Amino acid sequence: MAEPLRIALAGVGTVGAGVIRLLETNAALVAARAGRPLEIVAVSARSRTKDRGVDLSAFDWVDDMARLPERDDVDAVVELVGGADGAALTLARNAIRAGKGFVTANKAMIAHHGLELAEAAEAGGTPLKFEAAVAGGIPVVKGLREGTAANSIEHIYGILNGTSNYILSTMEKSGADFADTLSEAQRLGYAEADPTFDIEGVDAAHKLAILAAIAFGARMDFDAVETEGIARVRAADIAQADRLGYVVRLVGTADCEASDGETLRLLQRVKPCLVPKQHPLASVTGATNAVVAEGNFSGRLLFQGAGAGDGPTASAVVADLIDIARGEAGPAFSVPVAQLAPMEKAEGGDRTGRTYLRFTVNDRPGVLAEMTAAMRDADVSIESLIQEGRVEEGGEVLVAMVAHEGPERNVARALDLLRDSDSLTAPPLTMQIIA
Amino acid sequence: MAEPLRIALAGVGTVGAGVIRLLETNAALVAARAGRPLEIVAVSARSRTKDRGVDLSAFDWVDDMARLPERDDVDAVVELVGGADGAALTLARNAIRAGKGFVTANKAMIAHHGLELAEAAEAGGTPLKFEAAVAGGIPVVKGLREGTAANSIEHIYGILNGTSNYILSTMEKSGADFADTLSEAQRLGYAEADPTFDIEGVDAAHKLAILAAIAFGARMDFDAVETEGIARVRAADIAQADRLGYVVRLVGTADCEASDGETLRLLQRVKPCLVPKQHPLASVTGATNAVVAEGNFSGRLLFQGAGAGDGPTASAVVADLIDIARGEAGPAFSVPVAQLAPMEKAEGGDRTGRTYLRFTVNDRPGVLAEMTAAMRDADVSIESLIQEGRVEEGGEVLVAMVAHEGPERNVARALDLLRDSDSLTAPPLTMQIIA
Repeated sequence: MAEPLRIALAGVGTVGAGVIRLLETNAALVAARAGRPLEIVAVSARSRTKDRGVDLSAFDWVDDMARLPERDDVDAVVELVGGADGAALTLARNAIRAGKGFVTANKAMIAHHGLELAEAAEAGGTPLKFEAAVAGGIPVVKGLREGTAANSIEHIYGILNGTSNYILSTMEKSGADFADTLSEAQRLGYAEADPTFDIEGVDAAHKLAILAAIAFGARMDFDAVETEGIARVRAADIAQADRLGYVVRLVGTADCEASDGETLRLLQRVKPCLVPKQHPLASVTGATNAVVAEGNFSGRLLFQGAGAGDGPTASAVVADLIDIARGEAGPAFSVPVAQLAPMEKAEGGDRTGRTYLRFTVNDRPGVLAEMTAAMRDADVSIESLIQEGRVEEGGEVLVAMVAHEGPERNVARALDLLRDSDSLTAPPLTMQIIA
Repeated sequence: MAEPLRIALAGVGTVGAGVIRLLETNAALVAARAGRPLEIVAVSARSRTKDRGVDLSAFDWVDDMARLPERDDVDAVVELVGGADGAALTLARNAIRAGKGFVTANKAMIAHHGLELAEAAEAGGTPLKFEAAVAGGIPVVKGLREGTAANSIEHIYGILNGTSNYILSTMEKSGADFADTLSEAQRLGYAEADPTFDIEGVDAAHKLAILAAIAFGARMDFDAVETEGIARVRAADIAQADRLGYVVRLVGTADCEASDGETLRLLQRVKPCLVPKQHPLASVTGATNAVVAEGNFSGRLLFQGAGAGDGPTASAVVADLIDIARGEAGPAFSVPVAQLAPMEKAEGGDRTGRTYLRFTVNDRPGVLAEMTAAMRDADVSIESLIQEGRVEEGGEVLVAMVAHEGPERNVARALDLLRDSDSLTAPPLTMQIIA
């Protein structure tokens, strides 16, 4: 058999330990599929003594991970440290500069610095791979980069954050409110101690920006992703959605709104949405992720699986290593960075659709008249309106509406008209209704 | 830009015309992703004059398709003729012998001759690709060959035939019987004039055999697939399933039952099954296909999309051509043919599970006693039994049972005991219940 692919591993947390376990457990089949053995030769992490449940004694320990790529006995570097900048980015730059294959699970770093890294990797003819950065064990980066390579992708959307989806689908089952469900998820290990990136939609936005760049062949622009999290979704919203035939999901969407043949106008958005119960995304519960891509020849494709966890993430990392061992080293974003189309941020307001609006208001006469007048003045046509007798905590009353198909701009205008109203006890929540 | 990949196209039916349209419509992005243009230079088909809605005048017409590979100006041959043997197989052998890349959508040929062709392709260092042979536009061959390459796959199952799934899901909605639904499907173009391969499960079995070989790294054995079609599923079965919380789907399953480290014991089966309504496969309706693969690290992955049609199939064919243009030419079945493990056929009877049984019986005293006695004698424990007053055509009565979790062998023994009973008006139907 051919020479082994020799690997340096930076970061031995749960995913790193998973990679070590996978390469041990599946050594023979990985070697058969890669055409040669995959061998870890060196590791580096913050603590040398921490018990990780895997034996590191067979690997050289390196204190300064930035220097892993310098080793002559290393062909590829795996980065599992995390963080958009800092040690991870230094390591990535060093590895690529040294002509080593580079594999990472780091969505933040790729979303922020992926183009720079891809350009350097192309210049050096070095593979840069990040299957594990998006949707854990689901081979969706490969699916879009190669599987749907023949298609012009028109829409891509999905459930990209397992923690949020776990919380929303648990609220759906239990009827509990957001805060309680989050605490429970933290207790069970489904949410981190600091869950900000997950529940605020930032993690999903990282992944969406990466997928959009690959799918549309556009210059990735993480800052152009409109991001809204799930912290303001109430049990009452989920109950209303249920009555209307929907479930609530945090959906990342990227749509190509227009192209002048050169620049692509993309709307990239992460936002809680109402998903019809028959829609494939509605049955995605728990920490599962799912991505839908619509190509002009393939039609609608769905990729679904575990969005996180040591096993699935390790599966994606090692798939990338097998590709490198096989000599597969095409452009990281499907086409060379220089050929990615410039991207312009589309205005959400130009889109039309049905919208769910929820207000919390003081329980007094004239409130409904004020709200419906604002809708009328902004040209928003109300399809249904529910005000229930039930009074929420603090004496507020909940009013939910569904607006007929119409420009999102009008809904925003209606909310503007109500902005200074002292009838509202909190900013309203809007959710797009997916068709 | 680099030299074009020059393509000869054999067969210009709907899929061939789709490939021509795709390469025209998406020419620029295909070239960008492939790193070079893809150009059809020669075509061959049965009739030169038939109107296919695409312009063939730019391509050289070749009367004898077997000779396409001889042309010096051809780098890759696409076969869209169909048929396990005959012209398609001759062309495949000639193309591989001539060192040309070979791409096919022909599941029958790959299921029967794939190992021979893969061996020849490996010997010559020539790419052999058949993404379009399985599940149309879904990149599941690539998904299993590369995306889940790091995993030992334990189970693979899915809905692999669009026509059968269209018929079953239409019966579910309409309550109509099989024969009427088939006629309607034929009228609408969802079923062919001769639907045998589709409704008898043969087409699904072709695809299952191919997927199993890739997923398990086993020597493909189409003859080892147990195949049962959907023609005996009645409207009443679907109604009973519905009452029990299930839908009926034609499911292809491949399970690795045991391995002695060398030989793999595989159960490969295509059979109508009861699928719980919350299961991802239950929401797969119409002509959609879906494949679930369970890896030892990735966990459960689902790939879903259009299983047929000119656009999706063309998408898969051109994805293969892009891979060839990029120089990707690993083993067709994920590992070299010589390394595929020998496969032994597992006995279905060794498996345990819950089973749905449906009998049609004469409406007379003692019939239920006779049937339940047979169950008792074969050690089959009955979980539920439904005999409805309604008398079917011909005076027969329908009795449906669900057997508790137990060996399939026992169910088969019970049916054996009843084989010669003159109470039964037709052979019973059994369907496994998927957990």
